[in-house]
Amino acid sequence: MTAMTMLLALLAVQADAKPRARDLGVPFDGTPGPLNAITDVGGVQVGHTTLISGEAVRTGVTVVLPQGKGNKNQVFAAWFTLNADGEMTGTTWIEESGILEGPVAITNTHSVGTVHQAVIEWSVRNVEGLNWSLPVVAETWDGGLNDINGFHVKPEHVFQAIETASAGPVEEGSVGGGTGMRAYQFKAGIGTSSRLVKTEHGDFTVGVLVQANYGVRSQLRIAGVPVGREITDLMPERRSPGDRLDGDGSIIIVIATDAPVLPHQLKRIAKRASLGLGRNGSIATNGSGDIFLAFSTAHKDIGTEEGGLYDLKMLGNSELTPLFGATVEATEEAVVNALVAAETMTGREGYTVHALPHERLREILRRYNRLVE
Amino acid sequence: MTAMTMLLALLAVQADAKPRARDLGVPFDGTPGPLNAITDVGGVQVGHTTLISGEAVRTGVTVVLPQGKGNKNQVFAAWFTLNADGEMTGTTWIEESGILEGPVAITNTHSVGTVHQAVIEWSVRNVEGLNWSLPVVAETWDGGLNDINGFHVKPEHVFQAIETASAGPVEEGSVGGGTGMRAYQFKAGIGTSSRLVKTEHGDFTVGVLVQANYGVRSQLRIAGVPVGREITDLMPERRSPGDRLDGDGSIIIVIATDAPVLPHQLKRIAKRASLGLGRNGSIATNGSGDIFLAFSTAHKDIGTEEGGLYDLKMLGNSELTPLFGATVEATEEAVVNALVAAETMTGREGYTVHALPHERLREILRRYNRLVE
Amino acid sequence: MTAMTMLLALLAVQADAKPRARDLGVPFDGTPGPLNAITDVGGVQVGHTTLISGEAVRTGVTVVLPQGKGNKNQVFAAWFTLNADGEMTGTTWIEESGILEGPVAITNTHSVGTVHQAVIEWSVRNVEGLNWSLPVVAETWDGGLNDINGFHVKPEHVFQAIETASAGPVEEGSVGGGTGMRAYQFKAGIGTSSRLVKTEHGDFTVGVLVQANYGVRSQLRIAGVPVGREITDLMPERRSPGDRLDGDGSIIIVIATDAPVLPHQLKRIAKRASLGLGRNGSIATNGSGDIFLAFSTAHKDIGTEEGGLYDLKMLGNSELTPLFGATVEATEEAVVNALVAAETMTGREGYTVHALPHERLREILRRYNRLVE
Amino acid sequence: MTAMTMLLALLAVQADAKPRARDLGVPFDGTPGPLNAITDVGGVQVGHTTLISGEAVRTGVTVVLPQGKGNKNQVFAAWFTLNADGEMTGTTWIEESGILEGPVAITNTHSVGTVHQAVIEWSVRNVEGLNWSLPVVAETWDGGLNDINGFHVKPEHVFQAIETASAGPVEEGSVGGGTGMRAYQFKAGIGTSSRLVKTEHGDFTVGVLVQANYGVRSQLRIAGVPVGREITDLMPERRSPGDRLDGDGSIIIVIATDAPVLPHQLKRIAKRASLGLGRNGSIATNGSGDIFLAFSTAHKDIGTEEGGLYDLKMLGNSELTPLFGATVEATEEAVVNALVAAETMTGREGYTVHALPHERLREILRRYNRLVE
Repeated sequence: MTAMTMLLALLAVQADAKPRARDLGVPFDGTPGPLNAITDVGGVQVGHTTLISGEAVRTGVTVVLPQGKGNKNQVFAAWFTLNADGEMTGTTWIEESGILEGPVAITNTHSVGTVHQAVIEWSVRNVEGLNWSLPVVAETWDGGLNDINGFHVKPEHVFQAIETASAGPVEEGSVGGGTGMRAYQFKAGIGTSSRLVKTEHGDFTVGVLVQANYGVRSQLRIAGVPVGREITDLMPERRSPGDRLDGDGSIIIVIATDAPVLPHQLKRIAKRASLGLGRNGSIATNGSGDIFLAFSTAHKDIGTEEGGLYDLKMLGNSELTPLFGATVEATEEAVVNALVAAETMTGREGYTVHALPHERLREILRRYNRLVE
Repeated sequence: MTAMTMLLALLAVQADAKPRARDLGVPFDGTPGPLNAITDVGGVQVGHTTLISGEAVRTGVTVVLPQGKGNKNQVFAAWFTLNADGEMTGTTWIEESGILEGPVAITNTHSVGTVHQAVIEWSVRNVEGLNWSLPVVAETWDGGLNDINGFHVKPEHVFQAIETASAGPVEEGSVGGGTGMRAYQFKAGIGTSSRLVKTEHGDFTVGVLVQANYGVRSQLRIAGVPVGREITDLMPERRSPGDRLDGDGSIIIVIATDAPVLPHQLKRIAKRASLGLGRNGSIATNGSGDIFLAFSTAHKDIGTEEGGLYDLKMLGNSELTPLFGATVEATEEAVVNALVAAETMTGREGYTVHALPHERLREILRRYNRLVE
Repeated sequence: MTAMTMLLALLAVQADAKPRARDLGVPFDGTPGPLNAITDVGGVQVGHTTLISGEAVRTGVTVVLPQGKGNKNQVFAAWFTLNADGEMTGTTWIEESGILEGPVAITNTHSVGTVHQAVIEWSVRNVEGLNWSLPVVAETWDGGLNDINGFHVKPEHVFQAIETASAGPVEEGSVGGGTGMRAYQFKAGIGTSSRLVKTEHGDFTVGVLVQANYGVRSQLRIAGVPVGREITDLMPERRSPGDRLDGDGSIIIVIATDAPVLPHQLKRIAKRASLGLGRNGSIATNGSGDIFLAFSTAHKDIGTEEGGLYDLKMLGNSELTPLFGATVEATEEAVVNALVAAETMTGREGYTVHALPHERLREILRRYNRLVE
Repeated sequence: MTAMTMLLALLAVQADAKPRARDLGVPFDGTPGPLNAITDVGGVQVGHTTLISGEAVRTGVTVVLPQGKGNKNQVFAAWFTLNADGEMTGTTWIEESGILEGPVAITNTHSVGTVHQAVIEWSVRNVEGLNWSLPVVAETWDGGLNDINGFHVKPEHVFQAIETASAGPVEEGSVGGGTGMRAYQFKAGIGTSSRLVKTEHGDFTVGVLVQANYGVRSQLRIAGVPVGREITDLMPERRSPGDRLDGDGSIIIVIATDAPVLPHQLKRIAKRASLGLGRNGSIATNGSGDIFLAFSTAHKDIGTEEGGLYDLKMLGNSELTPLFGATVEATEEAVVNALVAAETMTGREGYTVHALPHERLREILRRYNRLVE
């Protein structure tokens, strides 16, 4: 561990007092980066605006900047959807052009429009030469805890999330777009993780950030252990107004890498997030919007409408296998991190969603011979 | 022609004094419906809000209601993109669920967010039992004539377009979302057309509505005649601020049918719009957002998250061929209708886009032995 | 259990003396059908031709008939590929038409052509009125154990597999197309499983058949237990000639259901096989051809080129969630069944692939508190 | 014109005495290469084996070698299907890997299997280090003129087509895989064309080869002129045994370029073939297999399962527009070349398909003011 990575790890501890899955002794495959976060991929910045006020405002917005502020953020990208009861705008042009331009924003389902326009406004003012924009805005539904039809996310919240985005540790749990979210009927929200991949052609990092809001309790597996069948209490009350089918929900997954991979290779990487969810027991219910975006920071300033002749590097196909593994592993861990970081929350009309109880989790893992002690 | 269809045709003439391509003697294949409009498909309603004011406001919004107001507008649907430098939100879930719920809105590129949120607000207030919404909002770029970064489309304009949507004749040219649009470097905007299809299993209608804003002059073919090479004057000035690559642009195409076809069959129908554009000479440039949506009104009240066991009808595959032909023909004609209906417009910073000159068009068609006299 | 299902279960025991995963105490979610096989879906028939001779012939062909011999086998279908280093012919037309016509055949990579032509020959002779055919032939690579470039699969082997296909128990392990296959560096091949799904609209069955030939040992999880990290011996020797990257391989998955679901819904079901593989630890390596086909037997005689107007039933979307769960669970189990049924095999140039040792598996499951005793 | 290109053009005239569309005065947009053939793309080789014997053998096989014999023929590639009632094997892996390896073969529908296995046999013998192969074999249906169920294409015919493949002029019409094919109910088969594209970043070539076997007479447009409505005689007799729906058929299109474009950009190029067909009046009927493959010869030796770190060039997106135009134009012309080159043929059971009459075509073009004299 270099002095720099130690410093970063130290900062991580200070900035985010919340425990993480590894702190509790949950075992995972692979080697994480120093922050065990999407920001281990150089240049990536994350910002949150968290809105918690009164009885029923429990929402926010999270942004991921592929190459940071002051950069055009034009990177190769691709997307995949495991189950599409959700929205991620901008994907049509990403699919065609192979390129993502600008920030990725994640919010609640009914704030997509506001955030979309706010990203355009911010881009018009801040990106030189920009005269059109097709922003990427994704969502999950927080209408259980949050007054979703109050439309509490405003343009200034988006500007703030972008302006305060930073490298370094990423706060997890009930923050940003994840503020009012739940997964496997526990409180959840934002989670992140990363993996280091060593190849003959250099060492690369894969980072994952999730906004987790999906899944039925009984399906939850952590490190292969049927935790959801062991903890059958602590269920949210079933509420009628504003609630959708119990257990439906969504998960947005953003995958970053510094490996030099092309758009069609990024699509392959994006697909692997499914396998991470599979490890955690997901069956991708009908009402779930499980949408994944992958980008590579290896090449810069490749505009979707630009001309020119670019010099690129490409990893050969068989080098992708370790990147696939890293994506599966980091997705698996990021979801558990979201569950571990989130605390019990009460919101709209007194509706309460419970946190995953840490000590019980440890006890269950021990019983299944999976606790790292 | 029944009394009813005569009445509808008469209304069409009265409501819209603008000439249409057939009025000028342009030949097309196939048999149009009484209105030669998307509203020939029973139940479909179209509404426009047109914003023209001052020097630089030249924009608006157009909505298509698949089954009309007071209906849940839950219909089988599918989409296809020929070239995707554009946005149509909501398509991810349409692709997965096979279902469109609610209105389709078309506006300018930088008003997608406002329109998206306005459709949610309208739906929450007006659709019983709705607690989430993933609206379909599409766009083309009018930043040449219109002050696109002034964000002039407001929620009330969307509400108005929905509330005033109606069956009957559809106004074409510089109206609604098409207000500031141009195609083949002529003024264009909204166009529509329809075809009647007779089969052993009943008579069906295919209706098409386009928001046309694409293409380079030299590529324009009308009825197979190289009109774009004959009219090389009347070009818009090339302007620098706010303009994108000359000739780039987009076309949004909405295809409606009352034929009982399933989502995967609607995708096939949506694809055929490409062939209609091919007839008009399109090469689908890099910067064009050529995005097509097809829906069938044959089945109602099929929600994307509903359960139940539905009784459906399905046309066998070989019956689709005439529907494919109808789609190609109606797309070809709708684009020419958009060009014919639009009048010369001056907008932002005095920028002018010229109308396709009707008499010169007739003269050229005559010279190529294609004028219907 | 009715007399009939008891009889079928009894037949299963008699016909197939090989143990299955459940017999060893491996726990799985959900309720299997009486045979715990794809043939629990009424009408489905499976046939194997197994070719084992001399030192190096270790191959064969397996066929799945969606509705049995004497039937046109025209059913709604869809496919999905998790990673596509493989072949499944005929999928292009399935994607477009939504329909599978005729048998599904699975063989080795270099016998696809022979099997393809043999299916055409058989169809021309046996299906009335057939004048063209686009057969579905899939493959995995058995060139480690089998002399794959000897092209030992002949047309008569395909005819035999079709002619002897039957309902009832399905033989697993080193049979049919699975004869020379290995998974997670253990001997594998054919596996099957099924699930019963109860809904308000009737009870349905989902059946899965896999030809498993993929995966690296260290990734293997069984019932969530890291079995591959516990059994690090019994590895195949790494051989040079004819071998591909260690751990690469493929898995073909065929999913049948009697639920009345449309092609776009079947695509969603096919995608869920990924999540079953995720549970078993797959990362879908670059060189793996993980291709899945799903069909529904609920509607018959729907030809890809037929006309007509069909009456159909469709399950509403939210009813699909239990079918998704059933697919995940049956896929997870079918893979383990393939591993459990296969016995150690020595083939080409003395190359040996070991069976998964049953007693050690039980001991490991016990240690992780997952053995069903 | 350099001495070399003059020589090539001269060779073209000598090798192929058949007239081409331009020779007859048909106008097309754009600038063709010296051979006006796919072989204008450097390295591309084409070979035909034509089987005409007895009353009913009217078939064959055509191969396209992306980089010529003695080369691994590993190139970036992508595919698209406008309507998929047909087969092109190998596309699943092309879609995923972005790479085509080995020859592209085109034959009749029922010889796909034979050709598939023959390509494997040839590859195993001739490509060093090859231990598996997923060949690309496409087809159209010649069962009207040809005894398709006689399976007359044998492995040696495939070997011969590969071994005799060459750069230089490409024979058109009733040759190779196109021997028994018809389009717009005229005799057709193989056609080719090319375009030169000048950009700031170098000059590139786009070449197209089609095996045309699709379309209903009334839809035929040549240079925008409704030729199919002018020539309503010379129709093939409708025959019952072995014939499919009149007018159904297929078109396989292979697009080659030397421009440095990535797989996702090649998919965009492949899509543009649709617009070329649109210009000729196609509606892509239900029974048509309209499948397009595009590859770039700019990068060599990029295996689908290889590792390594590659240096690549990529044209920026806005440079693609002229390549799109070139693809549309060359597709339009290649189809007409196939029609012009083919001569009237009588085959199975005396069935006759007529050639497009050259003088009548010229007369019609003259009447519509489109003849180049």
